[in-house]
Amino acid sequence: MPQNTENSIGIVETQYFNFDRLVLESGKELADVTVAYETYGKLSEAKDNAVLIVHAFTGDAHAAGFHKGDDKPGWWDNMIGPGKAFDTDKYFIICSNVLGGCSGTTGPSSINKKTGKPYALEFPVITIVDMVAAQKKLIDFIGIKKLLSVAGGSMGGMQVLQWAVSYPESVASAIPIATTMKHSPQQIAFNEVARQSIMGDVAWNNGNYYDKGQPERGLAVARMVGHITYMSDKSMEEKFSRNLKDKAYSFSFASDFEVEGYLRYRGDSFVRRFDANSYLYITKAMDYFDVSGKKFVHEAKKKDINFLVISFKSDWLYPSYQSEEIVKQLKLKGYNATYIEIKSTYGHDAFLVEADDETRIIKHFLERAHKEASNV
Amino acid sequence: MPQNTENSIGIVETQYFNFDRLVLESGKELADVTVAYETYGKLSEAKDNAVLIVHAFTGDAHAAGFHKGDDKPGWWDNMIGPGKAFDTDKYFIICSNVLGGCSGTTGPSSINKKTGKPYALEFPVITIVDMVAAQKKLIDFIGIKKLLSVAGGSMGGMQVLQWAVSYPESVASAIPIATTMKHSPQQIAFNEVARQSIMGDVAWNNGNYYDKGQPERGLAVARMVGHITYMSDKSMEEKFSRNLKDKAYSFSFASDFEVEGYLRYRGDSFVRRFDANSYLYITKAMDYFDVSGKKFVHEAKKKDINFLVISFKSDWLYPSYQSEEIVKQLKLKGYNATYIEIKSTYGHDAFLVEADDETRIIKHFLERAHKEASNV
Repeated sequence: MPQNTENSIGIVETQYFNFDRLVLESGKELADVTVAYETYGKLSEAKDNAVLIVHAFTGDAHAAGFHKGDDKPGWWDNMIGPGKAFDTDKYFIICSNVLGGCSGTTGPSSINKKTGKPYALEFPVITIVDMVAAQKKLIDFIGIKKLLSVAGGSMGGMQVLQWAVSYPESVASAIPIATTMKHSPQQIAFNEVARQSIMGDVAWNNGNYYDKGQPERGLAVARMVGHITYMSDKSMEEKFSRNLKDKAYSFSFASDFEVEGYLRYRGDSFVRRFDANSYLYITKAMDYFDVSGKKFVHEAKKKDINFLVISFKSDWLYPSYQSEEIVKQLKLKGYNATYIEIKSTYGHDAFLVEADDETRIIKHFLERAHKEASNV
Repeated sequence: MPQNTENSIGIVETQYFNFDRLVLESGKELADVTVAYETYGKLSEAKDNAVLIVHAFTGDAHAAGFHKGDDKPGWWDNMIGPGKAFDTDKYFIICSNVLGGCSGTTGPSSINKKTGKPYALEFPVITIVDMVAAQKKLIDFIGIKKLLSVAGGSMGGMQVLQWAVSYPESVASAIPIATTMKHSPQQIAFNEVARQSIMGDVAWNNGNYYDKGQPERGLAVARMVGHITYMSDKSMEEKFSRNLKDKAYSFSFASDFEVEGYLRYRGDSFVRRFDANSYLYITKAMDYFDVSGKKFVHEAKKKDINFLVISFKSDWLYPSYQSEEIVKQLKLKGYNATYIEIKSTYGHDAFLVEADDETRIIKHFLERAHKEASNV
């Protein structure tokens, strides 16, 4: 049963935008690019109400509403819809799948037209800069000169910051959530462990597995590590404690504890929806990302972008000190930045869960940004 | 070059103690058990100066001094020797490899005399209770009725607590360091990820790999995850920051960052010294361990054991709140417990690194315990 159908944007459909070529940060060129995207709400005549939602690591273009026949709404449906934080009665919302992904946008599992086979490791290493460049082409295609806002959590937050660096004249406001200006060595280390787990699975076969099936075991382990980092010590205690699946210890290597069963389940279901090579490419893009020391707006347009930076108290994967560092860098350079740390026990997952607090904060911020944008 | 040879106990040798059978916590029986152990210093005539050192997860009996021809001393050499925290001029130090291990004590890689082949998964699942029971047999064999102290960090600390529960009349004092009364779901989750990584490697072959070679890739990934949890966000920043191995990004899946190279190196060197099945058995023993709610000394002998509980500020694998919980439980029941949280940025590794602070604290504690023990 669809939940919240009352405030839902309803049935939505993924659309596809194609363009000829993209010159990448590495210097390489990618030809025949498709971007999967969805839009909700209506673009105003002045085209001043467009908000770009950018997704986290394993997200996709389906941020809100329901695909025909689906019971589960998009990944940020609690935030996007009539009367919600990203109010579809007021704003025109766009969300696209990232470059390198596996949910409609061109990535390593896509067919390379030159060979007629999936790219696999022939796909060039892409960066957050490239992801945002592909989004810019989409925005141009839709005919939007300046976005009212760009918003997203985790890797979405990196894209938000990159928008402000790459296309400052095209963004009125920016909402980076639970994110960082650059990965710390610990964050790189967790990603490297995931990559080694995938590449260490013999089924990975140097990336050429599309005719034989995924490196499921390696990818599942990578996802299990991820899940630990998305939760907090406390949220795991609240959800699982030391609860056993059966009455007593099995004295075997079966799952004894509920938390073990949960991780195995999440790992196993993940491999049915996500491409192992995309996991490699996207984690590498996150590790390479570094906008520390970069200019966030053109010198001539200082203070043009309003920033709302949000972090969560129990998030140890993207700890609050990293958001505080973003705010500090912005303030030191004289930009307008508001910072809020939301109290939550959910860890990094909080940005997907704590919709009430996020809504209260984002709603007012967007209204003010919209008013300012209309007055210009 | 041996370091610190001046304060070193010098050349030492591993010894072996055999016994016929051990009835395990699971109810199963293990026959023909060997325990590898080392001793340093001299047992006093009153036999009241014996200190048992219990090792962490992948440690061994070689805690101090040098094996003939070796350049590297034992794993806690900075704490054990003449004039050191565990002063070999005063105390008789014993350290044994845990049951289930792979450094001389019987474990899954040992030959099962009944079949003439390594046990592999025929080895029974063992617990911290069983590890301590094997140590008790060793102590009895050496002829010690009551240990002056039992001390150890991490899984060593679990054994310390288990000694106080299983054999309260045989322990005068106890020093659990950087440990817990029971694993939290997050701690279980990290162990489960490691087990899945090993068991997901096709080379694991349901544990039967002794004629073909270890599941190296799965075991290396398990160890890499471990290393992240042993360090702190801050110590990784101090050691690696975002330093690159080469001058620029490789735009490939090679190791770009120093932290990646370090993890790969540690993973690869670990598989040459540790048995994958031992990794499974010992992590399971840690996950099963739970002395919360257990009596720490016989009712009739309340206050018999003096506890010194130590934790480290940046340790997020065994956070201070777990040590505080140990102290709280002990105090609530009227036992004598001292607690110290040492400031350190080294994370869980601190218990091996912060020898100066540990020495100052442990030295006085042991002297008082020795005085009390001699006066009885």
